[in-house]
Amino acid sequence: MGAMGEFDLLDRFRARLPAGHARLLVGSGDDAAVTVPGGATATSVDAAVDGVHFRRAWATPAQIGGKALAAGLSDLAAMGAGPGEAYIALGVPPDFGEEACLELLDGVLDVAGRNDMVIAGGDLVRSAVLTVCVTAVGHAESAEDLVTRSGARPGDAVVVTGELGAAAAGLALLQRPELEEMAGLADADALRKRQLEGCCRPAEGRALAAAGASAMIDLSDGLAADAGHIAVAGGLSLEIDAGLLPLAAGVTEIADAAGEDPLVLAANGGEDYELLACLPEERVAEGVRRLGELGTPLTRVGRVVPGEGAAVRLPDGRRLRPAGFDALA
Amino acid sequence: MGAMGEFDLLDRFRARLPAGHARLLVGSGDDAAVTVPGGATATSVDAAVDGVHFRRAWATPAQIGGKALAAGLSDLAAMGAGPGEAYIALGVPPDFGEEACLELLDGVLDVAGRNDMVIAGGDLVRSAVLTVCVTAVGHAESAEDLVTRSGARPGDAVVVTGELGAAAAGLALLQRPELEEMAGLADADALRKRQLEGCCRPAEGRALAAAGASAMIDLSDGLAADAGHIAVAGGLSLEIDAGLLPLAAGVTEIADAAGEDPLVLAANGGEDYELLACLPEERVAEGVRRLGELGTPLTRVGRVVPGEGAAVRLPDGRRLRPAGFDALA
Repeated sequence: MGAMGEFDLLDRFRARLPAGHARLLVGSGDDAAVTVPGGATATSVDAAVDGVHFRRAWATPAQIGGKALAAGLSDLAAMGAGPGEAYIALGVPPDFGEEACLELLDGVLDVAGRNDMVIAGGDLVRSAVLTVCVTAVGHAESAEDLVTRSGARPGDAVVVTGELGAAAAGLALLQRPELEEMAGLADADALRKRQLEGCCRPAEGRALAAAGASAMIDLSDGLAADAGHIAVAGGLSLEIDAGLLPLAAGVTEIADAAGEDPLVLAANGGEDYELLACLPEERVAEGVRRLGELGTPLTRVGRVVPGEGAAVRLPDGRRLRPAGFDALA
Repeated sequence: MGAMGEFDLLDRFRARLPAGHARLLVGSGDDAAVTVPGGATATSVDAAVDGVHFRRAWATPAQIGGKALAAGLSDLAAMGAGPGEAYIALGVPPDFGEEACLELLDGVLDVAGRNDMVIAGGDLVRSAVLTVCVTAVGHAESAEDLVTRSGARPGDAVVVTGELGAAAAGLALLQRPELEEMAGLADADALRKRQLEGCCRPAEGRALAAAGASAMIDLSDGLAADAGHIAVAGGLSLEIDAGLLPLAAGVTEIADAAGEDPLVLAANGGEDYELLACLPEERVAEGVRRLGELGTPLTRVGRVVPGEGAAVRLPDGRRLRPAGFDALA
């Protein structure tokens, strides 16, 4: 970790980090962390900035840190990579105190612990705006075990993990608190929490890779946009039936209260951090079985065909226009 | 790379990055980069923030990007690691345009190319303040080939690469332009450039590791503070004779004009990004020979003794107090 002037805080950070680990020979406090990776390595870098990716008025420091790491782990999940190391670079403004920094780190460590990730180092600097940059490194026995975006084939089934729309509904609730009463929801906290804490599906990613996924992506920009990334990378088309999308509990009520189509909210809302995968038809049953063992639903939502781009069709036949998702823009 | 809303800029970024490389199977554009590391890996994360680590009024975009990467490579140099991959997360404020972003990336790519590093991905996000976060990954055949801060032994010689004080003198010139005329320097540009562009010594780091360095660190906080880090990590003391410090050309003139002691400037001024190493006495000649082959001087400045902390003594017998260095605080 680099210098912030606040060496005390740096010491308190380091006291919370592991000095070593089976995969980590030298941890925080030297010039660089030393690891002994085996086989292939997947590396993802994600920056989250106050006012753009989160709002301090909405999220606790622990939620900010935990969600930032979860977003990185979601990228690793989409490769089917196993757990590894993460590095946290924190840009700290004057009004974000030492205790808040430690709470943020605790949020990072909590998500790391639940996902068998080792926080191996990072940086701590002053900044005009709270910034959390996460480098997440995952491992696989060989590069062939990792799933890119580009391997889909015409005829493959398109499947998604879990349920969609909760993060977008949570964002709507945070932006318009009156929606909670309008929607008559018994429990809106789960939706807000999904927006504020994020999600990642690393075990599901590895299970889908093992089941034979030909291409995979995590749903950060929204299903319509992310399906488009798979289509472009593979030079083919994904036909998705929005009527098949698995909606999270409460999404329909919030969408109705907001005067939006729940299917559009689920298809265009970002930050669900579920996985979208393409699976050869004969491997779908195995994918469903493996995810069932993890307690996570796997839903077939479409298929891969020759062509260009992703087409999400609503039940009334209209084609959804993919919207780039920008949480707080 | 993640979404910025400005997909065009992201495409222009990606067009400049390698799609693949001998060490890089999947580059920018998928969920994560895929590499096949052999042996051991050293990873460093450094964030640089406008107004804290650099000033847009002083540095070109290319200098900002190049220095940020160089700082990461300097950490790898201090481990004796070989070249690898780097990831750049860029936080871009509204008044830092697309062309400036591309110039910054060109500065990164220039330094990467000169050091055999592959830019394997990153992130591009909006931010209230220009932020460059660099993750640098270097490789070695085995962890034993890497040099940490903690292996110094009493009796070892303390050596430094290159020349000291140029970055601090350059900073003084940027803060007080009148010093240039007061100092009567023929060429002050080299000093300013050293401050604005940084430096890294990866080949020298590997040469010192091969020569048998027992501990090594790069001089980012200033020699006195960084020698202290080696002392604390090894549970011993470094006695450094400031009169032996190799001063860069112009440092004495700038220090005199500013009314400072040139040796204090060289010992406490940060960001030289030279290397300080401890070498067993019988390996010093080999270290000098190997660095001579690289055209870089290696200067003995002190020795390791039992005790605690680093002691930098001025020629008049006074002991220098290590000052934490904070470039623009």
